[in-house]
Parts: sequence; structure tokens; C-alpha cells
Amino acid sequence: MFDNKDKTNLNELGEFGLIEYLTKQVELTQKSSVKGIGDDAAVLDFSNYKTLISTDLLLENVHFDLRYVPLKHLGYKAIQVNLSDIYAMNGMASQVTISIGLSSKFPLEAVEEIYEGALIACKKYGVDLIGGDTSASTQGLVISVTSIGYAETDKIAYRSAAKEGDLICVSGDLGGAYVGLQLLEREKQIFLENPNIQPDLEGKDYIVERQLKPEARKDIVELLAALEIQPHAMIDVSDGLASEILHICKASNVGCKLYEEKIPIDPMTYETAREFGLDPTVCALSGGEDYELLFTIPQDDYDKVKGQLDISVIGHITEASAGYQMISKSGNVHDIKAQGWNAFKSEE
Amino acid sequence: MFDNKDKTNLNELGEFGLIEYLTKQVELTQKSSVKGIGDDAAVLDFSNYKTLISTDLLLENVHFDLRYVPLKHLGYKAIQVNLSDIYAMNGMASQVTISIGLSSKFPLEAVEEIYEGALIACKKYGVDLIGGDTSASTQGLVISVTSIGYAETDKIAYRSAAKEGDLICVSGDLGGAYVGLQLLEREKQIFLENPNIQPDLEGKDYIVERQLKPEARKDIVELLAALEIQPHAMIDVSDGLASEILHICKASNVGCKLYEEKIPIDPMTYETAREFGLDPTVCALSGGEDYELLFTIPQDDYDKVKGQLDISVIGHITEASAGYQMISKSGNVHDIKAQGWNAFKSEE
Repeated sequence: MFDNKDKTNLNELGEFGLIEYLTKQVELTQKSSVKGIGDDAAVLDFSNYKTLISTDLLLENVHFDLRYVPLKHLGYKAIQVNLSDIYAMNGMASQVTISIGLSSKFPLEAVEEIYEGALIACKKYGVDLIGGDTSASTQGLVISVTSIGYAETDKIAYRSAAKEGDLICVSGDLGGAYVGLQLLEREKQIFLENPNIQPDLEGKDYIVERQLKPEARKDIVELLAALEIQPHAMIDVSDGLASEILHICKASNVGCKLYEEKIPIDPMTYETAREFGLDPTVCALSGGEDYELLFTIPQDDYDKVKGQLDISVIGHITEASAGYQMISKSGNVHDIKAQGWNAFKSEE
Repeated sequence: MFDNKDKTNLNELGEFGLIEYLTKQVELTQKSSVKGIGDDAAVLDFSNYKTLISTDLLLENVHFDLRYVPLKHLGYKAIQVNLSDIYAMNGMASQVTISIGLSSKFPLEAVEEIYEGALIACKKYGVDLIGGDTSASTQGLVISVTSIGYAETDKIAYRSAAKEGDLICVSGDLGGAYVGLQLLEREKQIFLENPNIQPDLEGKDYIVERQLKPEARKDIVELLAALEIQPHAMIDVSDGLASEILHICKASNVGCKLYEEKIPIDPMTYETAREFGLDPTVCALSGGEDYELLFTIPQDDYDKVKGQLDISVIGHITEASAGYQMISKSGNVHDIKAQGWNAFKSEE
């Protein structure tokens, strides 16, 4: 994973030294960031906007496997995963905090790599790192990120606001992150059996990146604003399409009808799923970690989205009594069930 | 620690089931809590106030030892520790998020206990639990708390605002949490050697509570407002008085002179420290976890604080070139050095 020769031991720096060392490169760019790192709490000014807050906990060997996740990517992904929750409210992310717990097996350079990846994500998305905590861990690596954003009151898209007749839309494509994970898992097994074999990920860049380096869809929030579309309900696809559409339907007390043929799946995702003997649609429905945005819009907005390459209309909202249905490519009706990624099942 | 017989396995509930189960008792009471748990992000409204954010990561066997920390106390303390950071800005805490990572050795009832303690703290301090994350952990227990609060712009007390001539004040008394920890550690060792011996904490309630069940000093923030005192610099005492006063001095580019005889130490702390062969003043300076507030006020405010039992004036701010000094009871001058609790040193 990394070579500890010539590396700096964390104990030499101490907690404050580490924080100072890591944060000296942090700059504040957001107008709302009044005070960042360096006091008991950060100070923010959202004046007339609502404040949005979301938090995630990422644990080694549960949410990531350091045998194939580079630390810089991990830092990057930890931020993206969290920003995605702010965009899923149709808001703009403006700040993050990142707390890291790590055992002494990690040298300073390892923490630096996580931070570097996190800061690249912050810079790319225009958010300020305003706080956090760094601590020893007697076990594995622990990362906790809180993201903060803002939105005008009437722009916020709750899960509960889907309406009968709404079109169901999703950004980008689905299933790639899950198939990418299968690929990485396979290469890990091969590597564990014979460490001399180099991973064969040739030509699979897209799906490997979908897993290791997801991008939160800030651009979709901006696109919807530019198209003058106010989404009714919105959620990010972290646990798979099935789980997310059920969240929206249950929170909104509505039903849904999805069309399998409309679910956007990248050709590489499709082919690689097939190589693994997986149904690509199941990967999209239950795979998770795609961090696309799933949202509903009024039917009248159809003309605004139909020419958009990055938005697919995949179904519509029905009355609650119609249930949660998917029409397969062959025309059969299936009930949609949540089989999203379950952190507790990973231990079974 | 707890008996797993007849307990509910976490796997049976799954992540969403667990969140639903734990959060059904959560109520929102703050005017600023627009939307709490149940969407991608919480929505808050601070209108004309500044938003304050602070976050902490608590890791098993680094920040707490489950052999003597009851889970309910742990949940309570996790919240208090974090609220303390908001009060240390001279602000009011209004919301918290709590994320918990836990291995399958914990039954549902264990998580419930943590939550119960956290919710007792929330209720007592009038803050809303608005989000979080619950996840499996392949290792120990991980708790991450983010606290959110608000303050009027000109009321916020930064670390960097101490001025030459300011009086240095501290709330409550110091060293108790550290001495309480020594007591718990001793009883743990005795218990490990002979599990039939019951812990002997008789008559030591105060210092054991200081360690296990600290109280953030919301009341001091309210008291200062009632006394019409605007503190210049403020910080909470989490790492010991020495470390905290140095934070203020360095951030404010000033020096300080503390008087050992003025440092408030409870008689029980004093006596128990002596029993352990510890210098009570060193416990106050370097012990940490007292979660009192350390702040500086203009000299003109002396009359306002001198009759307050819960506020001690322990010294004054000097020019930077005078350094960081403590005058001992015998009149000797000592340099103040930070020997605060260091999370990384705990592993050495």
C-alpha cells in the first residue's frame, strides 16, 4: 500500500503539529466562510439562505479496502460522497469538515495523501475546508466528513415532494461504480494469490473511476437552474436506483413506474457486467455508489430535458396504490424492491 | 460490558431499519431546524445570525475505554464535548449530528444506549438531533459528532481576540476529569486482576462524573450575557489549562501571567490527586477534559465577575515579549508549556 521507509512518524508531530502541517495549505474562497480552521468552531454566514448539513462516516474494510483504493482517491471520494448529499437537496455546497482517525501504521505522508485528495475535490468543487479533527486510531482508518451548503428556501428539493404525474429523471448513467468494484475485487483476489501479477484494468478506466473517483453532480444542479427547472423531489443515488426511488415514493406517498429500457447504462458497464455474469439492470438498480441525481419534474418540463444528453427520463410517478413498478424490456411488470448496499450485511 | 443474551442483532434490522428505529423518538424544538433526519441533508435557518460548526471524532480505546465507560454516558459525553466548542465561541448550540460505527459485537440495545445518552444531552441543552450516519465497523466503536450553533456577529469570541491587560478567567474548577480518570484506571486494573472485586468509587462521585459525564458550560455563556460581559477571547478547556491559554496567547499574539493560587481546584480533586502522588496544579494545567470555558475580559469588567462563584480570575494578558508565565504559590516564575493530552502519544 505504501512504503514506510524514510517516512515521518505521526507521533513526532503530535496532534496540533499534524493539524497545523495539514491545514497550512487550506484557503477560504467562499463568501460565507467567515472563519475556518483554527478556533473552537468555524463561523459561517448564510444571510438569507437556508443552511444545509450532511455527514458521513467512512470506515476501513467496510466502506473502502486500502488494498486497491489509493489514499488520495479515498480523500477525494470522501468529499464527493458528502457533497453529493448537498446537491441532492438542489443546493450548493460551500464548506466541508474532515476528521481522520488513523493508526500508527500510517506515516504522515499517508495522511497527507488523504488530505491532498480531499483538497483537490474541495478546490474542484469550490468548497472550503473549514474544520475537522485528527486522531490516533487503535484500529483501522476512519474518515468522517460533514458538508455544509446553502439554498434559497423555495429551491430546496426534498425527498417528499414528488407528485403524481411527475417525470422521473436520472443524471449520467448507473451501475458503473458497482461493476468497477467487481473488477477491483477480482484483481485483488488474483493479486492475493500471486503478488507478481499486475492488475489488468486495461480499457476499463471509466468504470474503475466510477468506483474510485466518483464526481458529485454539481453540474446537474446548475443545469436544472439554467433550464429553469425546479425539481419536485430529489435524492442522490448512493445505494442503487431501486432503494432511492423507494425513498422518494415512500416519503412522498406516491407510487412509480420505471421503464427498464430507459435506465441509462454505459456500454462498458453493460459489457463488463455481462463478463461477470451479472444482469446490468440489476447492477443499476441495486449496485449503488453511482452518486448520480435522481429527481422528479413536472410533465410540463419534458421539453426542457428531452435534448439533454446527461439527463434520462426513466419513468413517472403514479398514485400510491399503483405500487412501485418496473416494466422490463420484454414488457413484464416487476415490483421494485430495495436491495441497496447494506453496511450491516457486509459483515454477515 | 453488556449481556448479549436476548438482544437484537443489528443485522436483522439493516441500516435503514436501524436509523428509523433510533430516530423515531427524535423531536425538533429549535426554530432554526427546518428539516432534520430523513433527507439527504438537514435544512437550517439562521437568518441574521452567523452559523457555527464544530466536529469531533471519538474512537474506542483512544478517547474512551468501554471497560469503565457506560454506553449511555458515552453518548451523553460525545454530545457535551461537541457542544462545548460552540459555547466556546460565545454562541448558542442548536443542532447536532451523530454518526456511529460499530461492530457486530454490539447488539441493537447497545446502540440504543448510546443514542439514549446523546438524546438526554440534546434535550437538556435544547439542541436538535438533525442527522447522522450508522454503519458497521470491522473494529471498535466510532462516534463522530458535528455540532451546529449560531451567534450574533459581534458576540462571537475568537481565540485571537485577547488584548494586553485583559483579565484571564475560567469557569468552574479544573483537573477533576483527569483525576477521575486516574481513579477509573486504577479500579480497572484491580478489576482485571480480580473480577470479583467491585469498584471502590465511594465518595468520589464528583470527580468520576467530571470524567464520565462532563457538562458543557452553556450556563456561562448565558451568565456572561446577563452580566453584559463580551469576552474578548474564549476557548474550552479540553486539553488542559496550559495548552488552552497558549492557544489564546499565540492566536492573539500576546503573553500571559497566571497565578497558581488562583487556579480553581475542587477539594476532592486536590485530595485524590495527592493520594495518587500527583500535583493538583499539574492536573489542572495538563489534565484536560474539564470542558470549562477559559476566556479573557476587559479589566473594567472585573466588578461584574468578582462576586461570581462560578468564575475565577486566574491572571492577566501581558505583551507578547513577556512570554507565558505562571507565578507559583511560593512566588517562583515558571514558563507555561503545553503538555496537553495528545491523542497520538496515547499509542506510544
